[in-house]
Amino acid sequence: MGNKMIYFFGGGNAEGSASMRDLLGGKGANLAEMTSIGIPVPPGFTITTEVCRQYHENGNAFPPGLNEELTVNIEKLQLTMGSCFGDPDSPLLVSVRSGAARSMPGMMDTVLNLGINPAVVEGLIRKTGDRRFALDVYRRFIQMFGDVVMGVPHHEFEKVLDEAKEAKHVTLDTGLDADDLADVVDRYITLYERYTGETFPTDPRTQLNKSIEAVFRSWDNPRAIKYRQLNDIKGLIGTAVNVQTMVFGNLGETSGTGVAFTRDPATGINDFYGEYLMNAQGEDVVAGIRTPHPIATLADAHPGIYAELMNIRETLEKHYTDMQDLEFTIQEGKLYILQTRTGKRTIFSWIRTQVEMVEEGLIDERTAVDRVPAAELGKLFAPILDPEDIRKKGLKPVTIGLNASPGGACGKVVFTAEDAEAWAAKGEKVILVRIETSPEDIGGMHASQGILTSRGGMTSHAAVVARGMGCPCVSGAGELKINYAKQHVECNGRIARQGDIIAIDGFTGCVFFDPVTVKPSEIVQVLRHELDPEKSKLYHDYSTFMQFVDSIRTLKVRTNADTPTDAAIAVRFGAEGIGLCRTEHMFFESNRIIAFRRLILVAEKVKQLRTRLENASGSAREELIRELKSPLAQYTQALTELLPLQRSDFVGIFQALNGLPATIRTLDPPLHEFLPQDLDGQKEMAATMGVSIEQIQATISSLHEFNPMLGHRGCRLGISYPEVTAMQVRAIIEAALEVHSQGIPVNPEIMIPLVGTRKELQLQRDITEREINHILNEKQLTSLPFHVAIGTMIEVPRAALTADEIAHSADFFSFGTNDLTQMTCGFSRDDAGKFLGEYVSSTIYEYDPFQVLDQTGVGQLVRMAVEKGRSVKPKLKLGICGEHGGEPKSVEFCHSIGLDYVSCSPYRVPIARLAAAQAVIKMES
Amino acid sequence: MGNKMIYFFGGGNAEGSASMRDLLGGKGANLAEMTSIGIPVPPGFTITTEVCRQYHENGNAFPPGLNEELTVNIEKLQLTMGSCFGDPDSPLLVSVRSGAARSMPGMMDTVLNLGINPAVVEGLIRKTGDRRFALDVYRRFIQMFGDVVMGVPHHEFEKVLDEAKEAKHVTLDTGLDADDLADVVDRYITLYERYTGETFPTDPRTQLNKSIEAVFRSWDNPRAIKYRQLNDIKGLIGTAVNVQTMVFGNLGETSGTGVAFTRDPATGINDFYGEYLMNAQGEDVVAGIRTPHPIATLADAHPGIYAELMNIRETLEKHYTDMQDLEFTIQEGKLYILQTRTGKRTIFSWIRTQVEMVEEGLIDERTAVDRVPAAELGKLFAPILDPEDIRKKGLKPVTIGLNASPGGACGKVVFTAEDAEAWAAKGEKVILVRIETSPEDIGGMHASQGILTSRGGMTSHAAVVARGMGCPCVSGAGELKINYAKQHVECNGRIARQGDIIAIDGFTGCVFFDPVTVKPSEIVQVLRHELDPEKSKLYHDYSTFMQFVDSIRTLKVRTNADTPTDAAIAVRFGAEGIGLCRTEHMFFESNRIIAFRRLILVAEKVKQLRTRLENASGSAREELIRELKSPLAQYTQALTELLPLQRSDFVGIFQALNGLPATIRTLDPPLHEFLPQDLDGQKEMAATMGVSIEQIQATISSLHEFNPMLGHRGCRLGISYPEVTAMQVRAIIEAALEVHSQGIPVNPEIMIPLVGTRKELQLQRDITEREINHILNEKQLTSLPFHVAIGTMIEVPRAALTADEIAHSADFFSFGTNDLTQMTCGFSRDDAGKFLGEYVSSTIYEYDPFQVLDQTGVGQLVRMAVEKGRSVKPKLKLGICGEHGGEPKSVEFCHSIGLDYVSCSPYRVPIARLAAAQAVIKMES
Repeated sequence: MGNKMIYFFGGGNAEGSASMRDLLGGKGANLAEMTSIGIPVPPGFTITTEVCRQYHENGNAFPPGLNEELTVNIEKLQLTMGSCFGDPDSPLLVSVRSGAARSMPGMMDTVLNLGINPAVVEGLIRKTGDRRFALDVYRRFIQMFGDVVMGVPHHEFEKVLDEAKEAKHVTLDTGLDADDLADVVDRYITLYERYTGETFPTDPRTQLNKSIEAVFRSWDNPRAIKYRQLNDIKGLIGTAVNVQTMVFGNLGETSGTGVAFTRDPATGINDFYGEYLMNAQGEDVVAGIRTPHPIATLADAHPGIYAELMNIRETLEKHYTDMQDLEFTIQEGKLYILQTRTGKRTIFSWIRTQVEMVEEGLIDERTAVDRVPAAELGKLFAPILDPEDIRKKGLKPVTIGLNASPGGACGKVVFTAEDAEAWAAKGEKVILVRIETSPEDIGGMHASQGILTSRGGMTSHAAVVARGMGCPCVSGAGELKINYAKQHVECNGRIARQGDIIAIDGFTGCVFFDPVTVKPSEIVQVLRHELDPEKSKLYHDYSTFMQFVDSIRTLKVRTNADTPTDAAIAVRFGAEGIGLCRTEHMFFESNRIIAFRRLILVAEKVKQLRTRLENASGSAREELIRELKSPLAQYTQALTELLPLQRSDFVGIFQALNGLPATIRTLDPPLHEFLPQDLDGQKEMAATMGVSIEQIQATISSLHEFNPMLGHRGCRLGISYPEVTAMQVRAIIEAALEVHSQGIPVNPEIMIPLVGTRKELQLQRDITEREINHILNEKQLTSLPFHVAIGTMIEVPRAALTADEIAHSADFFSFGTNDLTQMTCGFSRDDAGKFLGEYVSSTIYEYDPFQVLDQTGVGQLVRMAVEKGRSVKPKLKLGICGEHGGEPKSVEFCHSIGLDYVSCSPYRVPIARLAAAQAVIKMES
Repeated sequence: MGNKMIYFFGGGNAEGSASMRDLLGGKGANLAEMTSIGIPVPPGFTITTEVCRQYHENGNAFPPGLNEELTVNIEKLQLTMGSCFGDPDSPLLVSVRSGAARSMPGMMDTVLNLGINPAVVEGLIRKTGDRRFALDVYRRFIQMFGDVVMGVPHHEFEKVLDEAKEAKHVTLDTGLDADDLADVVDRYITLYERYTGETFPTDPRTQLNKSIEAVFRSWDNPRAIKYRQLNDIKGLIGTAVNVQTMVFGNLGETSGTGVAFTRDPATGINDFYGEYLMNAQGEDVVAGIRTPHPIATLADAHPGIYAELMNIRETLEKHYTDMQDLEFTIQEGKLYILQTRTGKRTIFSWIRTQVEMVEEGLIDERTAVDRVPAAELGKLFAPILDPEDIRKKGLKPVTIGLNASPGGACGKVVFTAEDAEAWAAKGEKVILVRIETSPEDIGGMHASQGILTSRGGMTSHAAVVARGMGCPCVSGAGELKINYAKQHVECNGRIARQGDIIAIDGFTGCVFFDPVTVKPSEIVQVLRHELDPEKSKLYHDYSTFMQFVDSIRTLKVRTNADTPTDAAIAVRFGAEGIGLCRTEHMFFESNRIIAFRRLILVAEKVKQLRTRLENASGSAREELIRELKSPLAQYTQALTELLPLQRSDFVGIFQALNGLPATIRTLDPPLHEFLPQDLDGQKEMAATMGVSIEQIQATISSLHEFNPMLGHRGCRLGISYPEVTAMQVRAIIEAALEVHSQGIPVNPEIMIPLVGTRKELQLQRDITEREINHILNEKQLTSLPFHVAIGTMIEVPRAALTADEIAHSADFFSFGTNDLTQMTCGFSRDDAGKFLGEYVSSTIYEYDPFQVLDQTGVGQLVRMAVEKGRSVKPKLKLGICGEHGGEPKSVEFCHSIGLDYVSCSPYRVPIARLAAAQAVIKMES
């Protein structure tokens, strides 16, 4: 088996199975599986992904033995079908399709109708009596083979076809008769030979070998590479190649072709969902060139076929226990299934299908939880077009297209993917408007708020890709008249020009040539008590699903929140506390920034005088003490002003948390961040404070740093200005006492940032404990009526390296993986954008280490700190508060190394909860 | 023994010994030792350093049992001396002196003449018949006790004395007769009681207990703390206290006192070296208030005493096998040795004494090597005043003082330590000119190029401290008339005002009131072939000593050098290759910077177009290829211009090294460092290049980074601009081939900077190997006629963490501990100055981690990388090229973890060699 290169399927038996996805690709594995369970699949065989790898390793040449094994399988196929390559009387025609272990729709190449040549055309005419069909098959083959295998430009073929239609004054291909097509075939052959310098191959085996090679090569074409990057597809060795008997959906009005989902891929509703076209080949549906009919209409048009399809739908869902995406062809009234695979779907559909399948008893909760892509979950909370705004403005959609990818979007019209990328780079929100999209547009689609096309169905390129990206999309809005040259789109008497603001609704297909407010999702509305949960099926499914999730996971999930409002939202998203409250964010509000700036202006002076005082004696000492008096008074005054402001914030946060833990970090950013950098701001500050602008500029200049990331910040500020730490501690403790006295439990945790040595932490801990004692004395208490934990961020590599020492002074560690990544990898987050893209695309880093935790490097330090910390304090509380806390792969890592919790932004809390549950399942399997 | 608090010595026996330095302090241990070997030492006892620690732990109170043990020892002392505390007929008078395990001259407190009171004064008068003496003893005691123990200002006592002298119209203390002193004593007592609110204690035991406490407390006075910081004295627990019978050098003209070194502490010449004053107490010599006589004159004045001293000199040197620094007192013709200790000396003296002691058979080579302070070695290469310049300008010294600390210095006159610090902070070179210096001046002395005093001998505060600092010093230049009020110094008709430039010669004692060129040291002149080695005793001793060193060490020492000149110097300093050649330094020279700037302007454009090209197809692709043509040509042109310039530098370097290895680092700094930041520079650049200033500013702005340390630099540049790496490789290899063809061996090592992942290194290695192959093909060679190693800096923490992976692609690692420290500790070297001082003084870090490798944190990563690297490649070559490579503690660490070499700046190479030898000795002991 180890050296087997090709797996046959047909006649009710298959050498492969669904479990062989890595080797046979998704499509090949499923063709084999379907054949085995009695689904009507056209026979054929699959060349393994391993052969693709060998092909590339072999310098883009067939590996030894492949030709021989091909010959054997072709003979087997001929036997099964009773037809033969090149036999005019009974010709074997095959398709050659790519199929990797993970779906990459439209990214790699396909050749259909292979095996045809002039002699076979004559035979087909004799057999079907349909000269037009036979010539159309030939025409299509020349075009595909020329384009895909030999690189003859697609548009050159289209030009020939367009000229033929123009000459005949028709607009559809079907307007061309057999003679016209014969003429087109001749001109195609001429075109082919002019471009390639070769005669067009008539030998089917030659056609086959060249096509197989083309599919192998297409694995590494730029758009496939880009697609794998964008969709995070890694670790595959190549594509399999499926060679399968052709069936024809274009053999007249009893033939047709379609694609279907066993449930709705957009909403998850349990309806059979799909589209078909009669008298067409599959590519016509997928490419979105003609707009197909909804599958339900097949029930009236061809009730027998529809019933058979409904049976197959049930068989497949029961067999695969998940929603399937299938391609079918009807050839002269007989149904064939060309492909099945697990259906791609929106997160809305994921949640609904999985919850309902659990309710139907098809799967268990664990399976449901394991399947849903955690990273997608955030899209449930994506904005929608505000119906209120639409009502108020009396807006009417200019047209309604297909609701291809959910979500509401509003932005400026652009007509090319390049413009979309360029405008987005300038910070503009854009809607990409195209007749149809193609794989080259992926970058621009990614940069857009939404995508609008005038052609193509629910399974068109635009629709599939947009759903994958979670980008709102309305497709097939056929009333749009898009004029690329004039850079405008016209629709029912209205015009939107490049740069005009339009809105699209990917839930309904509505298109507005007006700005529309974009508002929170249904779930967010429920969480905010703006919508009755009973009225939202989506909320019901979501909350049911999250119950599954929470019953499995063990890792706690907290949130990063700096305000009472954020804290309250996060709790509704399931946050089990605050993992990071950045106290400095409170300083930026207008009335506070003044007091804080006053503090900065005087703090440095106080510090300098104190340093001199330390070394002075006698009269110099007394002189310094006198000199210190006034700045010290100003310093104390500024702190006194800040105290009640900070305290009131903490009161709000403790109230919102109602006893959940709140990790509050002391002042972290460098002081210059709080001062105005522009002259106007400096003038204003000087006026407000009643000091000279020179004094302000002198302070700014003395605070300037070359590498502020590695400068005077974090606990280094608390070491230089111990009174600031003390003030913050006082604000926290007084607030906690106040809330506690209201009968609300409190659970404060004080976190010291940027610690690199135990002594730094201990010095700040001493200040903290001393200030708590001051408060106790003032209030004549013997102890606080609640527990206060004092711990540290682990974000400097040295802290991780010396975590065993640091643990002696810490009640908890919280990994600040943003800064830890910056310092461990030597990347400034603000600057690395310039080269990190290149670094990921050339696989120097597998992922952007600021998005996905670099487990090999940064993760090694985290793991080391966990082990060292727990070696000293087995019950040391451990968490993570970098952005990684909401990223599924990183959450899995955190679970695996035994952290107690992750903390992330409020909207990522559900993602982290799901990822934590999936980590449990993964660890147990 | 464990609880023994006091160690007695006297009567030819001692409880302690020289080996008990940690417990008894240096002074106490030596008093015990000297007593045991028959040196005439006044009897006494030593309270241990452990008691000092207990005193501080006990809240500054005597620990239990101390009083009782004191009583026992006082009785023993009374028995030995046959005198008694407070007995008017036979009074016991004692000194109370500090004495830590490491010498801290003048930093802690001393009380002399303790035990005296009015009754004892009367007894002394009866006994000696010298009323003036007895009153002078009492006066001195009141003053010392008042100042040291009770904090009565020293100058208040001086004022009383000055008033008495004024009233009597005399200038010297000796001008006051007994009646005058009686009056002074009365006024002292009044002064004391006014300041302290207490009566002056007459009970000797009370005096003793209070004095002991004062000495304990003085351990933590600010100047002692500062001295320990400056002199890197750590890990001591406190000072011992020596209570010793007083002997009097002020009992008339057959009494006297002095200090002596068994060899010259400045030059090391094997002469008995010292100073004495007759009819004086020891403090008069040490404090530099009167200028004493050279010891040689004692031979004539008191030949018996001199002969006895010469005997003691020999006994002590033989016993301690090192140069001794001793204090003696002659009481009425009888010699007492009060103290001996290993003599502090200049590095010049260290080298000469150790080499000569080896030659004399007194010590072996290892001992000599082990003793010399490695960090001091650099001072051998310190500049001297250029005799040529002095001759040419016809300069004459305005005066000649004592050559107190070697080295030539030239700078602006300042008169206070505060000014010295302030001016130095502004970048000025200053000479601190004082009548005498005091412990409060240490900061200012440290900030000065040189120190000049008008009073005080070779053992005055200024002289001792300056030698310790390696700061040139001329002391006791009595002709100087320093006027602090007028801020000038007058001498033999010339005046130097504050800010005027003067020069001093610490080798000769010459003082110039003119600027004098400062030039290289004698050794440097020999190394540069500017001086015949035969004519330099210093060079002889140095080279002999370095032979001892090199015969012991195993760690190789290389140098960091970027030019042929530096490389040549470093080789003369003993460098065994280049550990770091920074190729970018070559770009800064004027003709090169133009070509390099041209490269920068066009490189980014080329990169952008290439990225777009990667994703384009069809006509867009062709368009881009056309667009790329011109910038690509400019890019290639700029590289072509740079190639011969770089190549010629490498030729020079390879020639200078003559086969020693040269580790050459590819381009490292961010590109913006090469562009002018000021408008004028930008205008000039625009004019030179014929481009618009806007284009230059646009490039500068696009290259701006928030944290350049962590930005687009190091191998990240080589990844973005592979042609730059290729050009540098070509320059190295072509240069090596050229030099090799001249018959000179070459040993190039190509080093890739800022690697964080193996893939980065491998990509750069691929480029390197590809370029080498191109060169081989061009030259029709099958292989290079020399070996080329390709390795990497380990300077990003992630590189250390993944060193096992990286080792697969590396022939060597070189630890870039500067950047590794920045990233591991999270310190920007350019910014951390603001708080690192505070961090070291509050012992958050033991040393500045940029000066002394942080072994706990950064060192842990280095050790880890060594282990991981060698686990993959046991013979991986390992070195260090950060500034730490020339710092003795760090060199010892590098030796201990098994590095192959350290690399440091040329002038630190001898230091590293010595430190490497000392590391061997330490590891073996």
